[in-house]
Amino acid sequence: MAIITLTTDFGEKDHFAGAVKGAIYSELETVKIVDISHSVAPFHITEASYIIKNAYKSFPEGTIHIIGIDSELTPENRHIALKLDGHYFICANNGILSLIASEFVPEKIVEINIHNKVDTNFPVLDVFVKVAGHLARGGTLEVIGKTITKIKQLKETEPYCNTEQNQIKGNVLYIDNYGNVITNITRKLFDKIGKGRNFVMRARTATFTEIFETYSDAINFNVEKVNREDGKKLAIFNSGGYIELAIYKSNPSTVGSASSLFGLEWRDTVTINFD
Amino acid sequence: MAIITLTTDFGEKDHFAGAVKGAIYSELETVKIVDISHSVAPFHITEASYIIKNAYKSFPEGTIHIIGIDSELTPENRHIALKLDGHYFICANNGILSLIASEFVPEKIVEINIHNKVDTNFPVLDVFVKVAGHLARGGTLEVIGKTITKIKQLKETEPYCNTEQNQIKGNVLYIDNYGNVITNITRKLFDKIGKGRNFVMRARTATFTEIFETYSDAINFNVEKVNREDGKKLAIFNSGGYIELAIYKSNPSTVGSASSLFGLEWRDTVTINFD
Amino acid sequence: MAIITLTTDFGEKDHFAGAVKGAIYSELETVKIVDISHSVAPFHITEASYIIKNAYKSFPEGTIHIIGIDSELTPENRHIALKLDGHYFICANNGILSLIASEFVPEKIVEINIHNKVDTNFPVLDVFVKVAGHLARGGTLEVIGKTITKIKQLKETEPYCNTEQNQIKGNVLYIDNYGNVITNITRKLFDKIGKGRNFVMRARTATFTEIFETYSDAINFNVEKVNREDGKKLAIFNSGGYIELAIYKSNPSTVGSASSLFGLEWRDTVTINFD
Repeated sequence: MAIITLTTDFGEKDHFAGAVKGAIYSELETVKIVDISHSVAPFHITEASYIIKNAYKSFPEGTIHIIGIDSELTPENRHIALKLDGHYFICANNGILSLIASEFVPEKIVEINIHNKVDTNFPVLDVFVKVAGHLARGGTLEVIGKTITKIKQLKETEPYCNTEQNQIKGNVLYIDNYGNVITNITRKLFDKIGKGRNFVMRARTATFTEIFETYSDAINFNVEKVNREDGKKLAIFNSGGYIELAIYKSNPSTVGSASSLFGLEWRDTVTINFD
Repeated sequence: MAIITLTTDFGEKDHFAGAVKGAIYSELETVKIVDISHSVAPFHITEASYIIKNAYKSFPEGTIHIIGIDSELTPENRHIALKLDGHYFICANNGILSLIASEFVPEKIVEINIHNKVDTNFPVLDVFVKVAGHLARGGTLEVIGKTITKIKQLKETEPYCNTEQNQIKGNVLYIDNYGNVITNITRKLFDKIGKGRNFVMRARTATFTEIFETYSDAINFNVEKVNREDGKKLAIFNSGGYIELAIYKSNPSTVGSASSLFGLEWRDTVTINFD
Repeated sequence: MAIITLTTDFGEKDHFAGAVKGAIYSELETVKIVDISHSVAPFHITEASYIIKNAYKSFPEGTIHIIGIDSELTPENRHIALKLDGHYFICANNGILSLIASEFVPEKIVEINIHNKVDTNFPVLDVFVKVAGHLARGGTLEVIGKTITKIKQLKETEPYCNTEQNQIKGNVLYIDNYGNVITNITRKLFDKIGKGRNFVMRARTATFTEIFETYSDAINFNVEKVNREDGKKLAIFNSGGYIELAIYKSNPSTVGSASSLFGLEWRDTVTINFD
């Protein structure tokens, strides 16, 4: 049975997500629909890119991922469908797959042309669902669009390395539900440039000289609980492979979080200097 | 396989929606449950009315829609089940179907009497799920209630036209996730009264003399991106058939939205004067 | 077909819940996944305990409940799986099942040892999903862990009764989507201590001398609507069997709620004195 996932900026309240799920069931009687997220900030392509990159991999190969962010068809924003790392993606060609596509070369990309001009304010419902239905029934990409060879890439998601190869300059990619700050610096890049050298990582006034594997690796459990440092700041390689700045067990709505305590927001700079 | 949808003001956090889904699976082993929304503002019947109207149509005929807003049984608030436009609805008789019922005449309405007096604080779980199970198994409305001929209508959802037929006075029906302002003036009414005449639409200080088909129709893509007007205000006929006031690609939490920038809230007046 | 539920503090936006659902479908082709809540406050074990207690009962026996709050494996926080009241639970041994386990004795508890040391920041995905898959395929608890006899209990969830048996001192357990204040005093305890005596219940400045069965029992429907008291405060036995303080039909974001109007927050004291 096909699986179709939804990642959108529709929010939790409006009818949009419900209507799309209804339309999918009208297309396909047997299908599994999975909400990945409907709470992407409106039109926030980088956020969506981070969320879909970290969610899609867990699904079985062949899963169809509908991404509904900034998806109105315009001369500058075409609809595409592609196969990449064994999964199908249906979205606008607005850079939303940048993070995935920086690691995998798409097997096939088409610019959707089942519409010449669809006058719709709801392209996810009127176009993407139809394409998903076609793919779920085993249809090929070629039937619903003309092959293209490249998709749009966001530049802001790439960190910068200096020519001396002793500095990585990245920035804040995403802030999660715990207020943890995810940078665009991957473990892979860190290892490649760092080669095991000592380093200082700076993000505003916060500095870090160690990156842990798990949150609790930063805690010394031999020290009695009452004597342990509260709200300990730490850096880890997160489950998505990115360097993440965190406060141990922080609750953003009460004690604050890495984001609020370090004063870090989306796009802020994070620098690593190696010895 | 039956489809049961849920539209409630339970919120995303509490156990209510989860408990209802568990109860449905306890009633019916094979059923598809779809969340339309659990984020309707508490007791906000107009919001729910807008959301269910715009979501239900996408579902296959025969879908059963449970609406759990202001559903406590009182002498003034009876439980009903009805068939309307090929779909089943189970809800309190509190006006929540006003927007749908203004377009379609219900085929059959019953006042649910499987309870004489159910002392419950959770009627969606204790009553609506049982009714939904009955309908999903192919049961008829007659078995679970006594036929009634009319359901309660909200008056506030209807715009007003003057006798000269050159003015429509509507109001704000809903504000969506993008901060777009949806009025209760339909395209159908606009066309019927306007008959193609020029017009000025006013909502507080904002005025509009054109209504577009899609958001991007308001944008001139021949102008280079950097020279285009930012945060362009516009009016469209939205995908639900209502006149909607919007700011092009606005994010309410950062740059503001039609609602915040025009200062428009639920029930505020929107007036259209035709030449 | 197995049912797996999810109760977490992942939030609605991030990829975590989506990734977990993908991993479940990768483990099990036919399974029903139900979101109970992803909006538990970060690391808030009491909230999670209340939500899962009130949701699990509606599901069919044999349902597998994954609870992902504060679930990182540490020397002080082990992973457990248990059978309790006919249901399976997979979680950290952090007190999260206190409210359920105060009513039911677990049939079987195991400390999960499919990992010796899993270096993971995402134990729900990397451990709990595998355990759930094992149970869904009919596997036994013994295979995935070593039997233990007790689980951690939160003390704060228990109210206190004086030796004269004329006072119950409880506190605020949970505040729901309507701003209603749920205390940790159960109807059972109230009846047992109260034995039908008159009482005064105090929560800050609010006092109550009656506890209703339903919200609307507090309203006199013989009085015309316009003459009825607005925003009536009331106490009820809620659908979970707890004493709850409420404002009739309150909307927290507009007129305020029991929580805001009485100034009550999590852990605040609620005292009942019997005559």
